[in-house]
Amino acid sequence: MAPGSVQLIPITGIGEVAAGDDVAAVILEAAQAASITLQNRDVVVVTHKIISKAEGKTVVIEDEHSYRLLVESEAVSIIRRRGDLVITETRHGFICANAGVDRSNIDGGQALLLPDRPDRSAHEIRRHIERETGCRVAVVVSDTFGRPWRRGVTDVAIGVSGMPAVIDLKGTADMHGRILEVTEIAIVDEIAAAADLVMGKASGIPAAVVRGLDWPQVEGRAADLVRTADEDLFR
Amino acid sequence: MAPGSVQLIPITGIGEVAAGDDVAAVILEAAQAASITLQNRDVVVVTHKIISKAEGKTVVIEDEHSYRLLVESEAVSIIRRRGDLVITETRHGFICANAGVDRSNIDGGQALLLPDRPDRSAHEIRRHIERETGCRVAVVVSDTFGRPWRRGVTDVAIGVSGMPAVIDLKGTADMHGRILEVTEIAIVDEIAAAADLVMGKASGIPAAVVRGLDWPQVEGRAADLVRTADEDLFR
Repeated sequence: MAPGSVQLIPITGIGEVAAGDDVAAVILEAAQAASITLQNRDVVVVTHKIISKAEGKTVVIEDEHSYRLLVESEAVSIIRRRGDLVITETRHGFICANAGVDRSNIDGGQALLLPDRPDRSAHEIRRHIERETGCRVAVVVSDTFGRPWRRGVTDVAIGVSGMPAVIDLKGTADMHGRILEVTEIAIVDEIAAAADLVMGKASGIPAAVVRGLDWPQVEGRAADLVRTADEDLFR
Repeated sequence: MAPGSVQLIPITGIGEVAAGDDVAAVILEAAQAASITLQNRDVVVVTHKIISKAEGKTVVIEDEHSYRLLVESEAVSIIRRRGDLVITETRHGFICANAGVDRSNIDGGQALLLPDRPDRSAHEIRRHIERETGCRVAVVVSDTFGRPWRRGVTDVAIGVSGMPAVIDLKGTADMHGRILEVTEIAIVDEIAAAADLVMGKASGIPAAVVRGLDWPQVEGRAADLVRTADEDLFR
């Protein structure tokens, strides 16, 4: 492989995850079956869906109305509303459609909430993987968000452990020796988007390894990605 | 490599690009020097900076005031303004800070505008690469945008040739046979974000190859990424 390359490796073969399942064990088992040997500094990206399922965040919904009520109860504030589309702030501080309550990839009549504390979920998965493999890894929990102004959805990070969420290049010189203006790179969002290229919505692959990255030794958290209301022009 | 993997390969060794340079030739020369052999279905991601430089989109600015005037002249509308921060709509339809006018990585006293037609730039680079290599490739032109609600910047696509900008999964069944709710994936934005993981702001690598992806035979354009004003809740 060319020097400086990064690999995006799908972890195939992960089946249905049920409440009480150990997500790290499920991932390690599938990785082994797929002959993927985890290495130091691998980033393991996991869609929140299997974490939420394992954590029992599945809710029975009887109809559209009960889904709407569930969305409202999961939101701490409503940012915009038009017809059935509700843009909400979740209790984690994320702004997204429908408070992150998901109805796809779920049995009919059920909805899936976000994990209560995605950073903690990421941390637990990381510690378990590190214990089993002896490797230092990072874990990113991803979800699929829309965004203003641009059509289509992309995957972003909603939880992180073992690496910074945002890399601050403040004071860094560029190749011409000039100080960079753009200083904060949302690296875990770029990692989540990259991983989605091999995970995909239709293929149902819920985890991937991002291999070959380097990062500063800083412990991040998803809250680092949340722009506070007073510095946000679009609430 | 594990099946289904995607590689992100930085094209190192690209030096300064000047007005009139042939970007495709510059990329091909650097790729060859770095022993990167382009293959069918490679996506070549190119930061707009070297395209804008080659297209002579560099403007001398005397001071902060002339930079501000330049930003206003490049914008077709102002979406929000607070202090020096101006969120603008460009004539391409993109909504971003400062009408995409860049002052980093540029000689002091100069600013860099966006290419006039990034899709056309992508198309010309693609055709040149395909002619030289005999491979069918796609080209994505990237830029670095901030976004509402989330801290940090990520790379997004502002031009595309040879592949769709957005993949529509409408009517696609997930692994349980249920029709997906999320239907439009902004695949070129995910590709741009992924490529930035190996390009980086400080390292000054302006191009990368994304290898191993598959996509429907649809020709996209950056306008496919623009959410029209009437379907946008945040203008």
